[in-house]
Amino acid sequence: MTRPLLFALPGNEAMTRVLAGEIEGEIGVIEVRSFPDEETYLRFHTDVKNRSMIIVCTLDRPDAKFLTLAFAAATARELGARRVGLVAPYLAYMRQDKRFHPGEAVTSVAFARQLSAEVDWLATVDPHLHRYPTLGAIYPIPTRTAHAAPLLAAWIRSNVERPLLVGPDIESEQWVAAVADMVGAPYRVLRKERRGDRDVRISVPDLHLYSDRIPVLIDDIISSGGTMMETARHLREQHFHFVVCVAVHALLSAESYRSLRDFASAVVTTNAVPHPSNAIDLTPVIAEAVRELMI
Amino acid sequence: MTRPLLFALPGNEAMTRVLAGEIEGEIGVIEVRSFPDEETYLRFHTDVKNRSMIIVCTLDRPDAKFLTLAFAAATARELGARRVGLVAPYLAYMRQDKRFHPGEAVTSVAFARQLSAEVDWLATVDPHLHRYPTLGAIYPIPTRTAHAAPLLAAWIRSNVERPLLVGPDIESEQWVAAVADMVGAPYRVLRKERRGDRDVRISVPDLHLYSDRIPVLIDDIISSGGTMMETARHLREQHFHFVVCVAVHALLSAESYRSLRDFASAVVTTNAVPHPSNAIDLTPVIAEAVRELMI
Repeated sequence: MTRPLLFALPGNEAMTRVLAGEIEGEIGVIEVRSFPDEETYLRFHTDVKNRSMIIVCTLDRPDAKFLTLAFAAATARELGARRVGLVAPYLAYMRQDKRFHPGEAVTSVAFARQLSAEVDWLATVDPHLHRYPTLGAIYPIPTRTAHAAPLLAAWIRSNVERPLLVGPDIESEQWVAAVADMVGAPYRVLRKERRGDRDVRISVPDLHLYSDRIPVLIDDIISSGGTMMETARHLREQHFHFVVCVAVHALLSAESYRSLRDFASAVVTTNAVPHPSNAIDLTPVIAEAVRELMI
Repeated sequence: MTRPLLFALPGNEAMTRVLAGEIEGEIGVIEVRSFPDEETYLRFHTDVKNRSMIIVCTLDRPDAKFLTLAFAAATARELGARRVGLVAPYLAYMRQDKRFHPGEAVTSVAFARQLSAEVDWLATVDPHLHRYPTLGAIYPIPTRTAHAAPLLAAWIRSNVERPLLVGPDIESEQWVAAVADMVGAPYRVLRKERRGDRDVRISVPDLHLYSDRIPVLIDDIISSGGTMMETARHLREQHFHFVVCVAVHALLSAESYRSLRDFASAVVTTNAVPHPSNAIDLTPVIAEAVRELMI
C-alpha cells in the first residue's frame, strides 16, 4: 500500500507536518489563495490519482472555510483520489443540536450533511456532543473521535503542583472527574446559568477547604471566555492567587484572550485550533484515530 | 395560489423589499446572527410551511455566505416549504470555468453543484459566462438570467451627453456593441493582456476622433478596478477630462473604489451588489426572471 498523502489547508501546516511523521504519510502541496473579489483559487501541485488522501482543516470559524474544503475534496475526487479523509481537530456546529425554538436551523445536522457529502471519513477531537450520544448519530460517514483528556491530565500533572480541578457545569462533571482521576487530584464543578450568548451567571462553591491548592479551570471549549473569566474572578476573591485555565479548543478572539489573561495566571490549550495559548500537542491521539480510519 | 414568501439574507433587505412589491410577494422575517465563535445562528420567524419561498442573497464574497444560505434553504425544506428559489443578482464562481493548469479546482462547476443541491431554482443577472454558453451547462436546476444592458443603456442615455462607449476587451465586444446600439452611441474596445490577478496591461486606441464625446467605460464586473483605472488614466492623457465608469457588478473593495475615483469622474453600478456606487435598480428585470421561474 502506498503512503497516505496529507494536505494542509491554510493554517494547518504545523499539525499536518507532525501528523505526517506519526502516520508515515507524505505531505502534498496544495495552493490556496483569494482572488481580489474574495473568491478562492485552489490547486493541487501533487498528483493525487489513486492515492489515499487526508485533508487537514480544523473547523473553527467554519463559514469562511467550508467552500475551500469542499472544493479541495471535490477536486481530489475528480483527479482520481481513492479516498479523501478529513482531519478536523475542532469540529464546528455541534452546539445547535435541537430546534429549541420554532423555525431554528438545526445546524449540527445540516453541517454534518454538508461535510459528509464531501469527504469519506472524519477524525476529530472531543466534539461538543450533548444531545447526541456519538458523532455517528448525525454523521453518516465513518468517524473517529480522539480524546484530549489524557493529554490535558499529563500536562496538569507535569506543570501544576497540588491542582484542584474546576469544571464549568454539571454536564461536564463526568469528563472533569475522569481528568481529575488521571491527574490524581480533587475536583469541583460550578453551577451555570446561561442568559444569552455572552451573558452567563455562575455560582462558584466555597473552596476555602482547598486553599492550599491551585485551581485549574478546565473546559472543552473557550469561546467568549466569559465563564472562565467570571470563575477566575470569583476565585481571586476567595484568595486564590494563582488560577490556571486549560481547554481543548481555543476559539477565543484576541480581545477575549487579553481579558481572560487579566484574571488567569495561565491559559493553556491544545493545538486543535492554532492559538498563542497552545501548549498541548494532540497529534499522537489524532494519529491513532486516523490509523483506525485508514484500515 | 398563495403569494410567494421572500426572505432577505443580511445585506439584501433593500432589493428584497422592492422585489416583493414587483412580484406581489410577502416579506418573511429571518434572523441571522453570529455566535461569539463565529458560527451562524439562523431562525425563520415566519412560517414557511407549504409556501413558495424566495431567498434573496447576492453572492459577492461567497465563501463567507455559503453556509448561511445552505442552512436557510435546508431549514426551509425541513419546515415544509414547497419550493425554495434563490435570487442571487451576482452569481459567484463563474470565472474558473476550466482546468487551466493540472490540479486546479474548477470552482464554477463545484460551486454550481453545491448551490444546486440546496435550492430549487436560481435567478441571476449577467453571470460571467465565458466558456459555457448558458448557466444550464453547469447548473442542473432551472435558472433564468436577467440582463442589465437595457438598464445601463437607459442610465447612460439619461445621464451622459454624447457618450462614447469603451469596452474592456474583444470578448466583451458583442455586449458593448449591443449597449451602444441601445444608447445610440459609438463604441470601441480595448486590447487587454492579463499577467496576473492584479496585473493587467491594456492598450487604449487613439480616440482623438471622439474628442467631443464623454468616454463611458463599461464592463460586467469591477473587481480590482485595475482595467478601468488604467483606461481612465490613458484617456486623461488623451485629454478627456470627464470619464464615466459603468458596471453591472460592484465587487470592488473600499480601497479600489477610492483609487478608481481618483481617475474616473463618476463610477456607476447596478444594485446587484450593494455598494456606494449603486445608481441603477435591477429589480424590474429580476422580477421578470422570477415570474418565469415561479410559473
